[in-house]
Amino acid sequence: MGGDYGPRCTVPACLDSLKKNPALHIHLVGQQEAIEQELLLYPKADTSRLTLHFATESIAMDAVPSAVLRHHADTSMGVALELVNSGHAQAVVSAGNTGALMGLSKLILKMIPGIVRPAIMTAIPTRTGKSHLLDLGANVNCTAEHLYQFALLGALTTEAAGLRRPKVALLNVGREQIKGNSQVKEAHELLKGLSSINYIGYIEGDDIFAGVADVVVCDGFVGNILLKATEGLAQMIGGRIRQELGRGIRAGLLAWLAAPVWRALQKDLAPERYNGAGMLGLNGIVIKSHGGAKREAFQYAIKAAVQAIEEDLPSYLQQHLHPLLEKCDGEKAACIE
Amino acid sequence: MGGDYGPRCTVPACLDSLKKNPALHIHLVGQQEAIEQELLLYPKADTSRLTLHFATESIAMDAVPSAVLRHHADTSMGVALELVNSGHAQAVVSAGNTGALMGLSKLILKMIPGIVRPAIMTAIPTRTGKSHLLDLGANVNCTAEHLYQFALLGALTTEAAGLRRPKVALLNVGREQIKGNSQVKEAHELLKGLSSINYIGYIEGDDIFAGVADVVVCDGFVGNILLKATEGLAQMIGGRIRQELGRGIRAGLLAWLAAPVWRALQKDLAPERYNGAGMLGLNGIVIKSHGGAKREAFQYAIKAAVQAIEEDLPSYLQQHLHPLLEKCDGEKAACIE
Repeated sequence: MGGDYGPRCTVPACLDSLKKNPALHIHLVGQQEAIEQELLLYPKADTSRLTLHFATESIAMDAVPSAVLRHHADTSMGVALELVNSGHAQAVVSAGNTGALMGLSKLILKMIPGIVRPAIMTAIPTRTGKSHLLDLGANVNCTAEHLYQFALLGALTTEAAGLRRPKVALLNVGREQIKGNSQVKEAHELLKGLSSINYIGYIEGDDIFAGVADVVVCDGFVGNILLKATEGLAQMIGGRIRQELGRGIRAGLLAWLAAPVWRALQKDLAPERYNGAGMLGLNGIVIKSHGGAKREAFQYAIKAAVQAIEEDLPSYLQQHLHPLLEKCDGEKAACIE
Repeated sequence: MGGDYGPRCTVPACLDSLKKNPALHIHLVGQQEAIEQELLLYPKADTSRLTLHFATESIAMDAVPSAVLRHHADTSMGVALELVNSGHAQAVVSAGNTGALMGLSKLILKMIPGIVRPAIMTAIPTRTGKSHLLDLGANVNCTAEHLYQFALLGALTTEAAGLRRPKVALLNVGREQIKGNSQVKEAHELLKGLSSINYIGYIEGDDIFAGVADVVVCDGFVGNILLKATEGLAQMIGGRIRQELGRGIRAGLLAWLAAPVWRALQKDLAPERYNGAGMLGLNGIVIKSHGGAKREAFQYAIKAAVQAIEEDLPSYLQQHLHPLLEKCDGEKAACIE
């Protein structure tokens, strides 16, 4: 029900995903009328692997998360999370209210023991392929311990996805030891002693897109502003190129000649391909789709959920986090002394 | 002497600027041999409005600012700032070590009374023209009062540059009142009551490039990472376009046809045009050039200094800040009660 387009986007995206992936089964949760009306538009679609669950309420995009936590039993988001909690489903995908999804996920699925706060992580395109950025807004006031845990979550999640000793970095205003705010400096002290993850130290803003690190760790305030700003900049550049291409008498020929260039850029850089941010640190898989995602982009979020299921991500995290969190407690004690 | 290229960039940039602006007089400060060697390369240049000042030392790009503060008398940066302090020059332009430039500027020129910390502000391109972003790294741990003062400095500086009631916004993770970290929320409380500046509330990362505000205020940690990340992204996109344009047999024709498009984009978006960040809040004009600036870009930094001189910026700030800082003290007291 969530996002800017609701079932108009999510229903056809689910049908497309079912068609592409014969192993997929989708539980579609939402208001009966809205879903059924949308399904009527696709009479030929195979719905044999689609189960409908109706919820009378849905959470508004501007709902205050604390209010949502008191009344969620009949909301589409609450019902979907309960399906995962009860073992009927293996992952939740939602384009809805991020704060509500985070709060309800913590309430219903609970956190992995030892993890203080969940973090939101997304992939972004870089010069060398892609990197992963976290946190993206779940946590606006972060301590060094939060940043430390985000680094572990990011390292293990990308490792589970097949990266070998992913390079993990802390985002900072400089690469020198003396640079940074107090949280970042303290997190650096916690991380630099770890041998089990491949911590490479500080990186700066421009290093992100140079692809210097596989996992870039920052607090949610920085991450959220950074991600939205880069989206805004990319849109501005794309818009300006289209505007300039549309001018002059050579425009038609130019557009035709430039089409393959444009397609190649779209293929690598299009934000649709990077849709589907993982909420990490929960006892279960929760994927947040961009609120502005359309039919194609939402399928990438579903794909991200399928991948996390195939990796058995929550088990992998639980198993590998345990010794690291214990080590963390020991090192922190040493660090404070 | 500073930046990635030193006199190889700054000397020809100065000669170009002198040629373009007949009212300009430049004091060139640095190591005698380096400057004279570089000047030999331009035997035909008019140097009648160029005064050389030799300094035996220069501050390394990676020097620790605290060490610089103890020994600066014979450094190019120190000599240049003393020229402004003694009234022999009206502005300093440097591509050198940002922390050292900030520290020495505070020490030699002093702060405008009432301003707690200087802030670095730059212009950035947006969909509707340009906006101004501050702080860009001078302050990594900011309180609400610092953000409040940055908003005042940004508003008055852009006003002095000719903007009528510039729209000033706080950068945040959402537009709703409940969003944000504690410093941002508190700064919002301080700003929203002011009638003398046009405070429009919170904006998000993507609003920056949409051109929603004329002045975007954030702490130096966020601002520095944001600016560098957007530079990195723009470079990546530019690089990818060039790479794609270079492929295939249609590349030559395409490049020729696309040249005007490329030029138009360069004209509006090229980072060179936005070089020259103001260090605001000081008793004097200090312009920081990007360390990576080349000959053309450095001229924009000199141009920014000329503009600030023509506006008599420090006097304008002093005069207009005074009542606002007093008001701030009153409102803060009320706010804390």
